[in-house]
Amino acid sequence: MRETELVEQIRRQAKRAYRGKSLVVGIGDDCAVMKPRAGEDLVFTCDFALEDRHFTLATHTPAEIGRMALARSLSDLAAMGAEPVFCLVSLAVPAKLGGRFVKNFYEGLLQMAKRYKITLAGGDLARFDKVIADVTCCGRVPRGKALLRSGAKVGHRIYVTGKLGAAAHALAAGRPILPTPRLEMGISLRKMGVSAAMDLSDGLSLDLARLCAESKVSAELVASQLPVARQATLLEALHGGEDYELLFTAAPRIKVPSAIASVAIHEIGVMRGGAAGVVFIDGHPIQSKGFDHFA
Amino acid sequence: MRETELVEQIRRQAKRAYRGKSLVVGIGDDCAVMKPRAGEDLVFTCDFALEDRHFTLATHTPAEIGRMALARSLSDLAAMGAEPVFCLVSLAVPAKLGGRFVKNFYEGLLQMAKRYKITLAGGDLARFDKVIADVTCCGRVPRGKALLRSGAKVGHRIYVTGKLGAAAHALAAGRPILPTPRLEMGISLRKMGVSAAMDLSDGLSLDLARLCAESKVSAELVASQLPVARQATLLEALHGGEDYELLFTAAPRIKVPSAIASVAIHEIGVMRGGAAGVVFIDGHPIQSKGFDHFA
Repeated sequence: MRETELVEQIRRQAKRAYRGKSLVVGIGDDCAVMKPRAGEDLVFTCDFALEDRHFTLATHTPAEIGRMALARSLSDLAAMGAEPVFCLVSLAVPAKLGGRFVKNFYEGLLQMAKRYKITLAGGDLARFDKVIADVTCCGRVPRGKALLRSGAKVGHRIYVTGKLGAAAHALAAGRPILPTPRLEMGISLRKMGVSAAMDLSDGLSLDLARLCAESKVSAELVASQLPVARQATLLEALHGGEDYELLFTAAPRIKVPSAIASVAIHEIGVMRGGAAGVVFIDGHPIQSKGFDHFA
Repeated sequence: MRETELVEQIRRQAKRAYRGKSLVVGIGDDCAVMKPRAGEDLVFTCDFALEDRHFTLATHTPAEIGRMALARSLSDLAAMGAEPVFCLVSLAVPAKLGGRFVKNFYEGLLQMAKRYKITLAGGDLARFDKVIADVTCCGRVPRGKALLRSGAKVGHRIYVTGKLGAAAHALAAGRPILPTPRLEMGISLRKMGVSAAMDLSDGLSLDLARLCAESKVSAELVASQLPVARQATLLEALHGGEDYELLFTAAPRIKVPSAIASVAIHEIGVMRGGAAGVVFIDGHPIQSKGFDHFA
């Protein structure tokens, strides 16, 4: 199948999918065109999903790869407290997988796009010897209200959503990782006025160290308070990547509920002064051993 | 080198580079944050630059790969008549190339970013067995003024900038292709009120057929009027990809100059009715033989 026909096929799939009002021009021109609303900031992120790195053709179906590729990027919008607007998808696939793979990849991706009301606005398509997806997502927040990593202060409580270590455990068992982006949660946290947030893609120890570095504080975790996923170990919960839960901090005056939209929230520690970027657990500094995409 | 250190290195490089006022938060958070201006539309595009597909490590230096990866994406902004705002860069590199490759790639990319006043706002970094870059660019245009592919009408004249076939000729000779995005040209054409535009990435015959299909017209080219690059053949000018010149149409009442900012403009034909999407040359329909990224 030629590129032009494949693009037409994707365009037909996108027409049946969710389409928001901000998008003026979608797939088929040199660029997508969008009309920003007054009084909003826009947030942008892009995330790779690479064969044999983030998934394999043995563990994930084409639709699951599409779904996961979008979910990884949507999770970054959740971390900003943003509402999804549109995505761009760059996809490269081997010749032998052909048009059927592309169609099924987009079926999976567009199903998730519908669930979270994000419009597929464009992208790129190429042939390559492995499957590569790079998904750029755009989200919106009221002006000045994006949840940053740099807002945590000494004395703020540290929280995580859901359970930790499940993805590391699934990965070890050869099961596919299919993250659920915490978008409703992120928006609720923003409205609640939490002070800092990020998503857990590389493991709590590494990601929390990054949040601490940006906020110029250190963190004190309590091991017994970590919500360890069933069958996972404490080490998987601390250092395992790909959980895509939200990590956030809030001033003590903020009343953080124990769950939002059926997703549990656990308080796991408190921010301290001292060495910026260091994470302590039960009083001992821990080495960040999270999943480093480059190590 | 670990991912965290590499990201810090890129962040330092980006701090010395161009930074526009619209960017509120750059590299280092889950998302980049930008503040749109009132009365503008935003345009978005993403383009792959893949090893052994769009470049090889033998023909391009790391800096040239960075420069080319950004240029390919900027060319799409030029085609919309847009002013560059920011870019996101997803980069995967093999372990053996290491931090030095990443640094030099960004040196090349940021040099070009400075030239065209575009801010590096974020991205993703991964390890992979080949070099993969995917560059997302955002540009701005006054509301409703983006140059689309769909605006050409019967009787409108067809134009191209620069010369055609040079890239195909360079590729055949094993020389690197280093496109110059026609950004000043694109902005001038938008202000002039041309009716349709796109960039020539896949060859005139294929790209013009696409523009015709979007505008629901056919095109009549005059072979003797095609600006064939020195040493290139007519076939390379017609079907060769990667030239990154602009193809545009304008109503007869528009006075199109013979050059803008030292880049020549050539009138090469006229739009006709009849079979939408068909390109004729000297009266004969031609098969689109342009570079199909998926064939």
